[in-house]
Amino acid sequence: MSSAKRAVVLASGGMDSATAAAIAKDRGYELYLLHTSYGQRTENKEYECAKAQADYFDAADFLHLTTDHLSKIGDSSLTDEEIDIEEADLESDEIPTSYVPFRNANLLAMATSYAEANECDAVFIGAHSEDFSGYPDCRPAFFDAFQEVVDVGTKDETEISIESPFVEWSKTDIAEAGTELDVPYELTWSCYKDEEPACGTCDACAFRLQAFQNISIRDPIKYAECPEYSED
Amino acid sequence: MSSAKRAVVLASGGMDSATAAAIAKDRGYELYLLHTSYGQRTENKEYECAKAQADYFDAADFLHLTTDHLSKIGDSSLTDEEIDIEEADLESDEIPTSYVPFRNANLLAMATSYAEANECDAVFIGAHSEDFSGYPDCRPAFFDAFQEVVDVGTKDETEISIESPFVEWSKTDIAEAGTELDVPYELTWSCYKDEEPACGTCDACAFRLQAFQNISIRDPIKYAECPEYSED
Repeated sequence: MSSAKRAVVLASGGMDSATAAAIAKDRGYELYLLHTSYGQRTENKEYECAKAQADYFDAADFLHLTTDHLSKIGDSSLTDEEIDIEEADLESDEIPTSYVPFRNANLLAMATSYAEANECDAVFIGAHSEDFSGYPDCRPAFFDAFQEVVDVGTKDETEISIESPFVEWSKTDIAEAGTELDVPYELTWSCYKDEEPACGTCDACAFRLQAFQNISIRDPIKYAECPEYSED
Repeated sequence: MSSAKRAVVLASGGMDSATAAAIAKDRGYELYLLHTSYGQRTENKEYECAKAQADYFDAADFLHLTTDHLSKIGDSSLTDEEIDIEEADLESDEIPTSYVPFRNANLLAMATSYAEANECDAVFIGAHSEDFSGYPDCRPAFFDAFQEVVDVGTKDETEISIESPFVEWSKTDIAEAGTELDVPYELTWSCYKDEEPACGTCDACAFRLQAFQNISIRDPIKYAECPEYSED
């Protein structure tokens, strides 16, 4: 094995985690990309994008996991087809219906198991500050608490740092840093719907388009609506 | 919905979690039994036992989850068929090969998602003091740290208590308390091998038989070896 530092990156296939992967690589880590299919509506698109990102970043390993647990527990529009996708309301303080209860704890637990088994030094997650207005498991205090669980719940010789580099950043900050690092945003998927082109109107599309608009860069993926900020 | 307190119990199918279920019921909780198949060798036996326990305890719900993530991550004799099951060494300080990295964090994360989606008040896990000589994710400090993650990582109105009632107990203490509560130990499976009768020689069988021997009660399940402490 090489002696390079190693990092697991939770690769959802979206632009935040793609940027997290670029930052980990820029910091000198060998990448172990972890993508999890948990019954989300956009599973196929997300998997394709995560796999393409692993190739792009020349990852040392790409692990694709499949679990039914978050979809069976349900209670979220991301996984429960009986709950409609909400149209974007960027100002709302309500927890959105796309919230999967305690999802990031589940994903970080998977990533930590994978990291410990592969003697990795870090786990990167692309959660950012605009997530935690609505998602309790995106707050800085959550990641701090999870670090403590990792410290006491793994072998004594295991040292894994939970890295959430965007926890104080906006999505605009992410797009800006990622653009400088040449993140291949054409290989990312954000839309909550599983149809090309992206809808342009769900929460995820709206936040993404707003970020690109703020840095005056065209989003390289195609949209059904909102032609002003997308490729035509 | 009824107004009774509700508890998720992580039901592995083994005697520790069956006793945890009995204790939760004795404390007045409605039971939500959660069994996870993650590619362990003894999956079929464990599922059958957990399901039978849910019927016995008249659980309000039984959720059976399936995930490949702990087996794909591997690195454990419980899930990796290339690693042999060790014979029992009850005095060893080494982390046994049956250790699945960070397994309990993964299971507790699933249980917390399930608990939050069902407005449960507690999550019970049957880990005990003799586990944590070898398993870092069975230590009291681990459960304390996980409680903090639950407190900050779930909705503000969610209040879930992580209950590990055996964390200072021996397996003998569990067998003694469970016998008083009439736990149906004939509906439990502990052996690391997937064949009836139980082998009687793996770590799990050895610990279990020792516990029953210590309280001078016959273990109601059948063993291939060790006839002195088992039904014939």
